[in-house]
Amino acid sequence: MPKTKVVIIGGGFGGMFTARKLRKMWRGGPGIELDIELISKINYFVYQPLLPEVAAGTLNPQDAVTPLRTLLKGVHVRLAEVTGVDLDAKQVVLLQGQKKILQRVDYDHLVIATGQVANLSAFPGFENHSLTMKDLSDAYRLRNHVIECMEMADVTRFPDIKARALTFVVAGGGFSGVETMGEMAEMIARILPQYPNIRRDEIRLLMIQWDPRILPELPEHLSEYALKQLQQRGVEVWLNTGIKSATNQSVCTSDGRSINTRTIVTTIGNGPSEFVKSLPIQLERGRIPVTPQLEVVGLENVWAIGDAALIPLPGDPNKPAYAPPTAQFATSEANTLAHNILNRSQGKSLKAFDHKSSGIMASLGGYRGAAEIYGQRVTGLLAWMIWRMAYIGMLPGWATRIRVALNWMFDYFMPRTIVYMGDTDRPATRYLHYAKGENVQRANEVPAGFYVVVSGSLEQVLQRPDSDPHVNQLLPGDNWGARAMKEERLTHGTITALEDSKLLLVQRQDFKRLSNAFEPLNELLSKRDS
Amino acid sequence: MPKTKVVIIGGGFGGMFTARKLRKMWRGGPGIELDIELISKINYFVYQPLLPEVAAGTLNPQDAVTPLRTLLKGVHVRLAEVTGVDLDAKQVVLLQGQKKILQRVDYDHLVIATGQVANLSAFPGFENHSLTMKDLSDAYRLRNHVIECMEMADVTRFPDIKARALTFVVAGGGFSGVETMGEMAEMIARILPQYPNIRRDEIRLLMIQWDPRILPELPEHLSEYALKQLQQRGVEVWLNTGIKSATNQSVCTSDGRSINTRTIVTTIGNGPSEFVKSLPIQLERGRIPVTPQLEVVGLENVWAIGDAALIPLPGDPNKPAYAPPTAQFATSEANTLAHNILNRSQGKSLKAFDHKSSGIMASLGGYRGAAEIYGQRVTGLLAWMIWRMAYIGMLPGWATRIRVALNWMFDYFMPRTIVYMGDTDRPATRYLHYAKGENVQRANEVPAGFYVVVSGSLEQVLQRPDSDPHVNQLLPGDNWGARAMKEERLTHGTITALEDSKLLLVQRQDFKRLSNAFEPLNELLSKRDS
Repeated sequence: MPKTKVVIIGGGFGGMFTARKLRKMWRGGPGIELDIELISKINYFVYQPLLPEVAAGTLNPQDAVTPLRTLLKGVHVRLAEVTGVDLDAKQVVLLQGQKKILQRVDYDHLVIATGQVANLSAFPGFENHSLTMKDLSDAYRLRNHVIECMEMADVTRFPDIKARALTFVVAGGGFSGVETMGEMAEMIARILPQYPNIRRDEIRLLMIQWDPRILPELPEHLSEYALKQLQQRGVEVWLNTGIKSATNQSVCTSDGRSINTRTIVTTIGNGPSEFVKSLPIQLERGRIPVTPQLEVVGLENVWAIGDAALIPLPGDPNKPAYAPPTAQFATSEANTLAHNILNRSQGKSLKAFDHKSSGIMASLGGYRGAAEIYGQRVTGLLAWMIWRMAYIGMLPGWATRIRVALNWMFDYFMPRTIVYMGDTDRPATRYLHYAKGENVQRANEVPAGFYVVVSGSLEQVLQRPDSDPHVNQLLPGDNWGARAMKEERLTHGTITALEDSKLLLVQRQDFKRLSNAFEPLNELLSKRDS
Repeated sequence: MPKTKVVIIGGGFGGMFTARKLRKMWRGGPGIELDIELISKINYFVYQPLLPEVAAGTLNPQDAVTPLRTLLKGVHVRLAEVTGVDLDAKQVVLLQGQKKILQRVDYDHLVIATGQVANLSAFPGFENHSLTMKDLSDAYRLRNHVIECMEMADVTRFPDIKARALTFVVAGGGFSGVETMGEMAEMIARILPQYPNIRRDEIRLLMIQWDPRILPELPEHLSEYALKQLQQRGVEVWLNTGIKSATNQSVCTSDGRSINTRTIVTTIGNGPSEFVKSLPIQLERGRIPVTPQLEVVGLENVWAIGDAALIPLPGDPNKPAYAPPTAQFATSEANTLAHNILNRSQGKSLKAFDHKSSGIMASLGGYRGAAEIYGQRVTGLLAWMIWRMAYIGMLPGWATRIRVALNWMFDYFMPRTIVYMGDTDRPATRYLHYAKGENVQRANEVPAGFYVVVSGSLEQVLQRPDSDPHVNQLLPGDNWGARAMKEERLTHGTITALEDSKLLLVQRQDFKRLSNAFEPLNELLSKRDS
């Protein structure tokens, strides 16, 4: 019997559970041979609601996730980056390994379950200066970042640097935003005693929410309860407020307020991934339109579920409703999809997707929660306990359940660790945004690297030891830093943004390597740097 | 009463225990006021013998270390990078925070306990192509790297890439090398069932040891025991063999053998750090010479202990012996030093350092160990249990002890996790070494970035779609990659090293950002790329 090859792209709720269900049903043996392959950029399954706890150090990063291979015995798991689909050849195109070798993988059925990505293009500076909470590395990075801020604030002599390091902003008051802020507030409260030079009243926690209330998915009085809980624990909440732009030193709101901070966590702004945008499919509302049977509209044996798909729910066809982008729905979609793929292979008719939500809940940190379950509203410690029990139950894999439960148990009586694992993941080149009046560089600093102006304008006040002060305007294409690095000296100039400006910074060590190895660049810079 | 300011550089065994002891003795109140500050590049204390277990996934990284602030209540802890000491002004010069702000810190007493760093300059290519086992990030990186190799080997279609990914080499057969190899062998054996396309006999574990035996610090028959244990678990051990050079794809030994591998862990080659070399002190054997009282020779109130110091032991003055660079000795040195600093402050006489080793032991992985304790030789499970108990006892901080013990317990009955946390810490610019005949790039690959030849020579065989094949020789200063990236196409040329060559690679994304922002570079490259 020829094997039917099912290729699933994405290892989240939709993709992982489709593979699991298909594998299980096929072992049940309905008379066809299945070859299932799941392709994912990461080799583990992330339970996103737990990410705020990783960011707060409650859970060890490795303990909060489950390796896909462990969950998917009998399924081929491929760690690779999918770049496109060749619909005519029925092949997935991907880049594999460190050398990014191009490969093509054949399929009979294709499942697209790649989710959505953070899309912050509407908010200048956010892409470069805010942290997101999409995957494990994000959570891990936030944890390190908060500890770095505390370490710096404890020893710095500059009050503005201290204030900036101790101001923590979360943009967005939905589930992810509220849980992130709740956990962050708890973490900071617990580690504070280890920083003798930081007083509680020097720390500022701020949540910015566009809606008139936080957790708008919950009934109004639960939102109010959550708001009070956060406020009692020292969180400022700005309602009816949007974010506008971010710089290396501040965030600006839609009503023109500016906050001095170096920590902005963004939990809003989702959009289709580059891969989904590259597909020859007309997206609707940034999602892939599918039939009620979960097949991509107009394409046979190509399916899409989860956040990447726009899935119609049964009801009034003149006023269509769509499945919400939640884990609960994605899991249910995976079930229907596994059935439909098998039914199609066996020439049976397909089933339309339907699901009723069993409830909705949020953890607020500090042993408090808010939930609505089968219409019942619960708050406080009880809601928090239900949250924890429900989430343990929903975690796939017994080892991960035990690990998470033990992490929770020990967190109760053990100190929260403040191990700082260094500047993880800081790339060699970075775009930096500065608002009018913000200082980019002072004199007598170690040069950070090679700067190029991308847009905007800046003022450079040069005070060389051997000459009078000299004022330059720096415009797009202008650069500085190469000479100071070459001469192994401190900076001479003070540089300030004259308007909102964007710079490219090539870090010191990387630029030095390039200019040492590539002499023409050196010549070019010495010619220009008169 | 004026405060006496003691500044300690380094948070390892020497530095941390000096601070702890000083703080404890001063609380005992001998009539002086102490202000103790410890400056460290990392904010935690690492117990290095546990690093191989972090690399093997037995211990969670955060659980294997203890935050310095937790261990040093009442001591100022500063996370910063010390760049020098101004002996005349009695000030430490350091760089602090993300912006690397220059600061000066006054001292009355200075303690240098910065240890040694890996020095691989004698072995070309090792600095860029081998992993070391000095700190927590190294261990974490190795763990990720091994999982990455397994993931890649499971899916690749190229036999040479598979063989390379499954060959794991450890250079050095001392304690760190043996423990790293033992733990790595155990980890691979345990995770192997999750990789259905990898057979046990495709994995190669190789240890290269310059000495005629491994663990030369132990009595001969314990060395033999350890060797047999490793061999039984599938480790090849090459004795009487040195390392010579490493490339992106291979390691070459002193007797001219070449091994196809992308994993080389180096546990040999220590030397003074840049900071120690920058001191106005004449080093001896790469260490800071101190008096028997631990004061730097010729400098008052400047002290040095641990691996950074050359500490004479009492005995025959014509044939001096020096304290070995072990944790046991460093801890004992810290005790003597704390006494001497207090004695000096109170005008009392100083004590000479002396210590007798209580024993020496190694864990071999797989529940086996080898130890000599107070002259008794122990092997097998018992030695392994003694090793674990002794190390739990030596760990500072009760929370870390509990965490490590629990990690060990759960590792016994839980699966080893294969969560891959991504390419941690891969810098944007990298030096790459290639040996004669090794392939750098094939045609039809996604260009990795911008390459510049630093030394050596390479052959480029260009096969553009619109012309005949064309052979170029690439010499230092020559570059490629910019054009393929600009045109968003795959590579046309095959590039092979004609002799041992060194390249600089600027990664794709970083080079694109720089050439987009900095137009002159673009012009320069289009002019040259005819």
